[in-house]
Amino acid sequence: MAILLPAAARCYHRVKMRLVTFRSAKGAAPGVALEDGRVVDVSAAGFPDMLALIANWGEARSRVEALLAAPPDGAVFAPGEAALVAPVPRPPKLICVGLNWHDHARETNLPIPEVPTIFSKFATAVIGPGEKIVLPRSSTKPDYEAELAFVIGKGGRYIPAFRWREHVFGYMNFNDVSARDYQLATTQWTIGKSFDTFAPMGPWLVTADEIEDPHDLDITLTINGEVLQSSNTSHLIFRIPDLISYLSSVFTLEPGDVISTGTPAGVGFARKPPRYLRPGDEVTVSVERLGELRNPVVAE
Amino acid sequence: MAILLPAAARCYHRVKMRLVTFRSAKGAAPGVALEDGRVVDVSAAGFPDMLALIANWGEARSRVEALLAAPPDGAVFAPGEAALVAPVPRPPKLICVGLNWHDHARETNLPIPEVPTIFSKFATAVIGPGEKIVLPRSSTKPDYEAELAFVIGKGGRYIPAFRWREHVFGYMNFNDVSARDYQLATTQWTIGKSFDTFAPMGPWLVTADEIEDPHDLDITLTINGEVLQSSNTSHLIFRIPDLISYLSSVFTLEPGDVISTGTPAGVGFARKPPRYLRPGDEVTVSVERLGELRNPVVAE
Repeated sequence: MAILLPAAARCYHRVKMRLVTFRSAKGAAPGVALEDGRVVDVSAAGFPDMLALIANWGEARSRVEALLAAPPDGAVFAPGEAALVAPVPRPPKLICVGLNWHDHARETNLPIPEVPTIFSKFATAVIGPGEKIVLPRSSTKPDYEAELAFVIGKGGRYIPAFRWREHVFGYMNFNDVSARDYQLATTQWTIGKSFDTFAPMGPWLVTADEIEDPHDLDITLTINGEVLQSSNTSHLIFRIPDLISYLSSVFTLEPGDVISTGTPAGVGFARKPPRYLRPGDEVTVSVERLGELRNPVVAE
Repeated sequence: MAILLPAAARCYHRVKMRLVTFRSAKGAAPGVALEDGRVVDVSAAGFPDMLALIANWGEARSRVEALLAAPPDGAVFAPGEAALVAPVPRPPKLICVGLNWHDHARETNLPIPEVPTIFSKFATAVIGPGEKIVLPRSSTKPDYEAELAFVIGKGGRYIPAFRWREHVFGYMNFNDVSARDYQLATTQWTIGKSFDTFAPMGPWLVTADEIEDPHDLDITLTINGEVLQSSNTSHLIFRIPDLISYLSSVFTLEPGDVISTGTPAGVGFARKPPRYLRPGDEVTVSVERLGELRNPVVAE
């Protein structure tokens, strides 16, 4: 039951591949966000969710493009009609890199690391664009961290750095929300990084072919319009090839693994005076060409 | 197509609920390990894997018991015929507690902690009984840690400590294998804990009703028969009720989450001289009433 869209909307095969997951009557479904704000449901491509789409992209892409050229009846949502959730709602691994920017390492008074500092957030923390960051009532130091995340397409072990492009599926904005009091209560950061709602990502996952050089993208974080972080991914200490090589020398990378590359200077706890998240704030992470990840902040 | 077993084997509804996952021609399947060494395939209960079984145990248990009383044709495997894998091959979270034993905290020269030290291992590290622990060629300090792990049945957030029994599905042996050089190369331990094969668990998952008091179980670790760790879970600093209350105050616990409670004294790197894992070793973790988790150690 395919219907052709009006001629003006025909060039769907030329659209940017901005993949989303959205809430539909049938549950979560994969889609593509068009530049005019509409969302096209691509679940008719035969892959029920983003992980399946990523794992089978070689086959899925042409089917998705065909759906965009001639969307089935009811598959196109007007701007604002499809409720976006996190592009990758349940990553097999959610891997974060700490102290990975020259300026952030300086502001935390820590030496430039010689190996990447790796920790994880639990997948229960994941939320999508527009969803609320809930400030835990037990923390007095909830903080923000603007980051560029990349998503693994083809998995593997012992991936040589120079082959990194074969393994990166795409990129998205990420906010590594952190309760500093919990994070620093013991030596291990995971607990302070894993409160429910502390892993906002999105609004979409941009496929790797859309981003020529992920190591030259402006990145900013604003709260209520005030710029608090502003840098460029050229200042990363460990770059994506290094990270893929290092991580895959330890464990198997899998399709859908989300790896967030760390945050530049300007986080709340390093400011004088500190600037923690407050109920009523709206936090926006924006990496160049990846859209804007906006999340309201509420008290628990 | 149910066949009744000989009378001697009839009392299946009285068997201990030792749940396993085993490799079958159809892929991994859930089963029950009988005390005589046989394994009964219980996938006919309608739950395709251990996570589904755990999440639906209220309904699943009676179906599993019915299958044990009258196993379908081909569902009973002779001792050694069913290849066991990890009982929970893909836990939603694999959460570990560090420095949680009075004696281990002493041997590492660290103060007794006031809050639990939490870190995670990635699920790609999980292996089952009999499977090989592969020593990474890049580590010179691969170590062992005998632990009691518990598995969440009913999930939740803000679970009061006193309600812990409602949320524990069962218990199993766990070996928190650790590359000490990687673990201590940065402040964050996750990378040294997450090499592929570094999370042996099993051989089975014993349901909570079989274990009256998980805080009074002997625990030992032997390598090639030599006892290197020997303690009792009564020496845990943070007990299961504390851990469930603490963790669920931060994030949502889910059915199938594996939480390992930490290791007693006697780990390799704290011995004088150190005793690291070597190719050819066989490591056995044995918590009282949970069977023996044996894993051969090989070079990469």
